[in-house]
Amino acid sequence: MKELIEGVLHGRPRAIARLITLIENSETATETAVTALYPHTGNTHIIGITGPPGSGKSSLVNELAKVLRRQDLRIGIVAIDPSSPFTGGALLGDRVRMRDLAGDRGVFIRSMASRGCLGGLAQTTWAVIKVLDAAGFDMVLVETVGAGQAEVDIARAAHTTLVIESPGMGDDVQAFKAGILEIADILVVNKADRPGSDRVVRSLETMLHLGPVGGTRHHGYTGEVPLAAANGASGGWQIPVQPTIATEGKGVPELVMLLQQHHAYLQTSGEWQQREKERCWQEIMHLLHLRFMAQFQTAVPQTERASWATAVAAREVDPYTAVRQLFLALSGGAKISTDGA
Amino acid sequence: MKELIEGVLHGRPRAIARLITLIENSETATETAVTALYPHTGNTHIIGITGPPGSGKSSLVNELAKVLRRQDLRIGIVAIDPSSPFTGGALLGDRVRMRDLAGDRGVFIRSMASRGCLGGLAQTTWAVIKVLDAAGFDMVLVETVGAGQAEVDIARAAHTTLVIESPGMGDDVQAFKAGILEIADILVVNKADRPGSDRVVRSLETMLHLGPVGGTRHHGYTGEVPLAAANGASGGWQIPVQPTIATEGKGVPELVMLLQQHHAYLQTSGEWQQREKERCWQEIMHLLHLRFMAQFQTAVPQTERASWATAVAAREVDPYTAVRQLFLALSGGAKISTDGA
Repeated sequence: MKELIEGVLHGRPRAIARLITLIENSETATETAVTALYPHTGNTHIIGITGPPGSGKSSLVNELAKVLRRQDLRIGIVAIDPSSPFTGGALLGDRVRMRDLAGDRGVFIRSMASRGCLGGLAQTTWAVIKVLDAAGFDMVLVETVGAGQAEVDIARAAHTTLVIESPGMGDDVQAFKAGILEIADILVVNKADRPGSDRVVRSLETMLHLGPVGGTRHHGYTGEVPLAAANGASGGWQIPVQPTIATEGKGVPELVMLLQQHHAYLQTSGEWQQREKERCWQEIMHLLHLRFMAQFQTAVPQTERASWATAVAAREVDPYTAVRQLFLALSGGAKISTDGA
Repeated sequence: MKELIEGVLHGRPRAIARLITLIENSETATETAVTALYPHTGNTHIIGITGPPGSGKSSLVNELAKVLRRQDLRIGIVAIDPSSPFTGGALLGDRVRMRDLAGDRGVFIRSMASRGCLGGLAQTTWAVIKVLDAAGFDMVLVETVGAGQAEVDIARAAHTTLVIESPGMGDDVQAFKAGILEIADILVVNKADRPGSDRVVRSLETMLHLGPVGGTRHHGYTGEVPLAAANGASGGWQIPVQPTIATEGKGVPELVMLLQQHHAYLQTSGEWQQREKERCWQEIMHLLHLRFMAQFQTAVPQTERASWATAVAAREVDPYTAVRQLFLALSGGAKISTDGA
């Protein structure tokens, strides 16, 4: 482990790959690695990239990396595939398109399955980002599919969140948009050569003017609902809408410029520090939850857990009563019994 | 509250709507309502419906409801929109298509925003399903967009999970599929009149034969990773792939038949009870987490929380050390101090 940490700090690809594999397979390794690497982190610009299936995220990430490489920046790419553990880890399907980046030591690409990670996707992703951060990559691009909690989590892990749309995604994209606009720092309309792309750009711009989107994100440690939109509308960062045709590289240099402008904005406005605090707090809360669950598994044996599930399923006990009793047991209190409920 | 509960048990639409609003706005109301209604639940067939944006879920739910109504079944519909709290709750966009169901007392439709729910989406959704269950609806259709954690949660809340695909969703649908195949009991290829739909059906059927998908789902209370595919391949439910053209109602009666076959399968195989136990356990774990977090907010004042976030962001303390210290404070132990870390 010590040797691997040393290798990571020297940016050696093999050490990076091996440490990430350890992190994916062991929570103890994750803790050791993060603790050792942590003082060397904090220098990478973390970019979250999300959007619905079919929006062309992978092609865009590929093109982004190529343009960034021309500026001699070192780029880490973490692609989160919602594939299952039993298909043997992350699918390589759309990774194939990244073949032209292979062999370039300035780029490190890693696909991760979104299920079956020990400790959950969030913990693993946070740890992997730290490895790439400590290894000296200038930017880490974290790519994910979908429109759910995972995307909000990614937004929390990133300094800059890119949301990709494309024309012709159907009606309920409208609803989809409303949800992700809240997490976007930059909007991209990919496949801009397709019919209807002007309409998508216009409708996104309209939505941006409807609500107080963007700007200061909320801090979880205040105890209020995080990501609830704050004052953003007044000044601050104006969320741009950038059309691209990733397959031809069109619009990508402009997008890189926007990424760098957002980075500069975060630095000069002081929001970088705010987002760092928020990122750290989200991670703390997640780790706290994992620790609590581990404690719970130890305190309440499996047979007890099964009998509670049975009693609630049989409608003998309601779930709130069950939770009150289980919580008592955790606090070292009363003996749990489904009879006494 | 007592009057509302009474009204819900008599299936009165206004009481149902008012109680759901209370649940969306107060955790205390949620607990009171669930505790009171719980003994009257357990009779509804809960159906989760998910798929990527643009797959035509809402049209399909609409058509399903119409066919089910012809059998004189009472149907509850819960549509979860990933819209933000500040746009004023759930968007009504695709609800408009359900206009032909309006005025029918045998159908109750509710849209819910997926952000900003007190206690989280899961708790609110679980509670709303219980209200509809206790109100005597024969089936509850829970519709959601995306491919993330939310979908896995919905699968856990449902007896039968429908996953909708459609042709022409682009390359990374391949990755999307692998993730959701794990939660599907029935696959639907909607927009089956579009070019490429045969190919989608065939590729889904191929994927179904690749891995040990379906059948017995895993129980969280064993302490192992839930939803890891178990033995399903050997016997049990064979996941069907049903083509539909929702806008024309084609394939929908066949889909209703599949839903009813799955219900019969769950009942005769004993898997209904297994899924009920799993559903209940997931809910217990979620409520336990919420209770723990509430206790944490009380035990660690906001200023303390903020100073931990600051220390970790400044790389003075690593997140694991922070969590260890915070956990001590929770257990009534040592005074927390970022200095002592």
